[in-house]
Amino acid sequence: MEFLNGIKEDGISEVADILKNGLKEQVIVMNGAVHKIADMSGFTFITLRNREGLIQCIKDADTQFAEELKEGMTLKVKGTVKQEPRAPFGFEIRLHNVEVLSRPAAPMPLPIHKWKLGTSLETKLELRPIVLRNIRERSKFKIQEGIVRGFRDFLFTQSFTEIHTPKIVAGNAEGGANVFKFEYFGKKAFLTQSPQFYKQMMVGVFDRVFETAPVFRAEKHNTTRHINEYTSLDFEMGYIDSFEDIMAMETEMLKYVFKLLNTQYQAELKRLNIQLPEIENIPVIRFDEVKQLVAEKYNRKMKTPNDLEPEEEALIGEYFKEEYGSDFVFVTHYPSKKRPFYAMDDPENSKYTLSFDLLYKGLEITTGGQRIHSYEEQCNKMIERAMEPSEFEDYLMIHKYGMPPHGGLGIGLERLTMKLLDEQNVRETTLFPRDVNRLEP
Amino acid sequence: MEFLNGIKEDGISEVADILKNGLKEQVIVMNGAVHKIADMSGFTFITLRNREGLIQCIKDADTQFAEELKEGMTLKVKGTVKQEPRAPFGFEIRLHNVEVLSRPAAPMPLPIHKWKLGTSLETKLELRPIVLRNIRERSKFKIQEGIVRGFRDFLFTQSFTEIHTPKIVAGNAEGGANVFKFEYFGKKAFLTQSPQFYKQMMVGVFDRVFETAPVFRAEKHNTTRHINEYTSLDFEMGYIDSFEDIMAMETEMLKYVFKLLNTQYQAELKRLNIQLPEIENIPVIRFDEVKQLVAEKYNRKMKTPNDLEPEEEALIGEYFKEEYGSDFVFVTHYPSKKRPFYAMDDPENSKYTLSFDLLYKGLEITTGGQRIHSYEEQCNKMIERAMEPSEFEDYLMIHKYGMPPHGGLGIGLERLTMKLLDEQNVRETTLFPRDVNRLEP
Repeated sequence: MEFLNGIKEDGISEVADILKNGLKEQVIVMNGAVHKIADMSGFTFITLRNREGLIQCIKDADTQFAEELKEGMTLKVKGTVKQEPRAPFGFEIRLHNVEVLSRPAAPMPLPIHKWKLGTSLETKLELRPIVLRNIRERSKFKIQEGIVRGFRDFLFTQSFTEIHTPKIVAGNAEGGANVFKFEYFGKKAFLTQSPQFYKQMMVGVFDRVFETAPVFRAEKHNTTRHINEYTSLDFEMGYIDSFEDIMAMETEMLKYVFKLLNTQYQAELKRLNIQLPEIENIPVIRFDEVKQLVAEKYNRKMKTPNDLEPEEEALIGEYFKEEYGSDFVFVTHYPSKKRPFYAMDDPENSKYTLSFDLLYKGLEITTGGQRIHSYEEQCNKMIERAMEPSEFEDYLMIHKYGMPPHGGLGIGLERLTMKLLDEQNVRETTLFPRDVNRLEP
Repeated sequence: MEFLNGIKEDGISEVADILKNGLKEQVIVMNGAVHKIADMSGFTFITLRNREGLIQCIKDADTQFAEELKEGMTLKVKGTVKQEPRAPFGFEIRLHNVEVLSRPAAPMPLPIHKWKLGTSLETKLELRPIVLRNIRERSKFKIQEGIVRGFRDFLFTQSFTEIHTPKIVAGNAEGGANVFKFEYFGKKAFLTQSPQFYKQMMVGVFDRVFETAPVFRAEKHNTTRHINEYTSLDFEMGYIDSFEDIMAMETEMLKYVFKLLNTQYQAELKRLNIQLPEIENIPVIRFDEVKQLVAEKYNRKMKTPNDLEPEEEALIGEYFKEEYGSDFVFVTHYPSKKRPFYAMDDPENSKYTLSFDLLYKGLEITTGGQRIHSYEEQCNKMIERAMEPSEFEDYLMIHKYGMPPHGGLGIGLERLTMKLLDEQNVRETTLFPRDVNRLEP
């Protein structure tokens, strides 16, 4: 009988190993894809790409391999590590021999080894699997990994529990028609627009919960900030004193995320030339006040009294950057009319809700707020909106049998990444975007 | 202008704070839901439930509150901490006063405060949001959190990158009819059965990737081990020497997960009386050998030559437990006929593939294997299966422009949890199960 007991030492060096105890001249074996080949007089530069980055290799004119190397091949190389300050990691590998692990069937469709690709977004999306092999393109998604990691790690320190809730649902949490429908064993089912109902249910169980999962919006908008499937970073917390507790938690979380990026993702930040925002204080302003302020300051007519137009969000971003040096601003007390039926109205003025959006560089990246916890209050608000409470029995179960005061938020991961990286289109920071025209790759 | 700069000290004690520097008599404030009330002669036991567990509180007969306490209320309590070895955390709180934060609208529909609920699975699923408030029920999902956490944390130590791939797709990675279909802006779309294509694409980018996300199977099976939406723990790795590297990575990952559970989730393991499996060596056996072995040992006729029947899996589990003391067994070299078109055939016998399942206590919890990386080989295998390579252009792009030898696996989170917790039905370890009859809650 054969047995497995874990990973074995495979003799393959990583960059980290080579740099660990000071760079020593040594013979190593390394894996990678041929990213670029440049013939010079007397030698050839072969740039290998692996998960750590680009590794500069040198083939002398008198070294011969059994097979000519080509871009897109994957290799196991053996060579001597030599200090070379001009190379990416401060060293290069003088190749002794190579083993070709695999060969491409065609030459690259575009020069992914270029520092900046300089192709259209359309091409970038058409050739996504290959385009992402560009070092700068892939760095965006490494940073995105760091955001999610920071979000989770921080919430674990705050005693949140991670949950996995269904994406196929019978009802429509956010209301509206922007929902994908399909047949589920003879029943009508929807793709969830948010884990709202489920995370509230789970607050009754674990007090504090979070989820990082896809959500689906059948919106026909074809803008630079909309996609039809995105990753939502959601948390929901019980025993809050006010909805400010939620904003405070988000502020602390963002600080944690940027600190993590700063310590763990420096290579990617440098590659993309990203300055992390410094968050000390995030300004907080009421919806009606900021509407007024922007109208006056920029001499603008208000068109949508109950919502912020994209242009208004951009101007708010501008204003708070100029006046307070802040990339972020919390806008609070959105009108009840524009918030879902589970939003708690402001007891001081029920035209408004105890809710907020977080704007980052003039774009909404978070929507959150306090939710109604009283059964009677929730049923009444539903009836006011011509909703039938008996159709929401499963959801209302939590209110009926007792819920703590609670609230939470949802963050659009791709939007947050887009703004952090100063990209102009959310598709740039979505691995495989889905929009009204795009279902592939 | 108001500003937020993070979380403020709220004066609420957690159990961990109270236990930190040895238990001292002290006055504290704590939040929680009224889990149980028991009137005794001269005093009342009030059990509070919060995210940490159950906290025993005592109301003396001469202490009066403004309002009578009821199960399901949520409270902020103030009281004196006293040592009490018989109480859950070794202390109780002598209540001074309580603030009622919220009130239920109806008495509990079932006694969630019981140690074992003793209700049918059907009731447990109907009343899911309330049933999960039972301490033992919720502990299952805390352990599930630990499994996912361990999976991710381990893979981060192995230089894997976390990815988020689309769940709405144009094609059907696994083949077969078991796929949910819907209309996507005038096109036909599917819910993904696995992130297979996308994780392979991303191996070309990051060498090693993982994802923890929902997958969807429109299977009509209504068994104790099938649900129609589950959380798949997927990883995929490049530069493998053989498919054993994948099994070795999984073995190491499982060790890491059980170690994490052992250190961080002791309270839940104790509540559920779970003995963690000790993994030293996992036996590995070929599909054809183990088929034969089970047929002989248990005097059983083979009915499905190309697959393992559930009963065979159970017998294999039994056999390896008895003979080798192992809850786990890798079954390798599944027949090509039963594996998808991207599976790499065994060069020594193309009737079989370089693939495996991991069985845990007689149930398949993982399917994995090496994938074809050569463009020509992949096109040929598709053509043999009457598939049209041109319909898979996006996917085949990675093979065309070069892929390292690679492979990976997918683990059913709910099944792994079910087996670890010795549950008899996967619905017991699914937060909100979806099956052919169940779409709610």
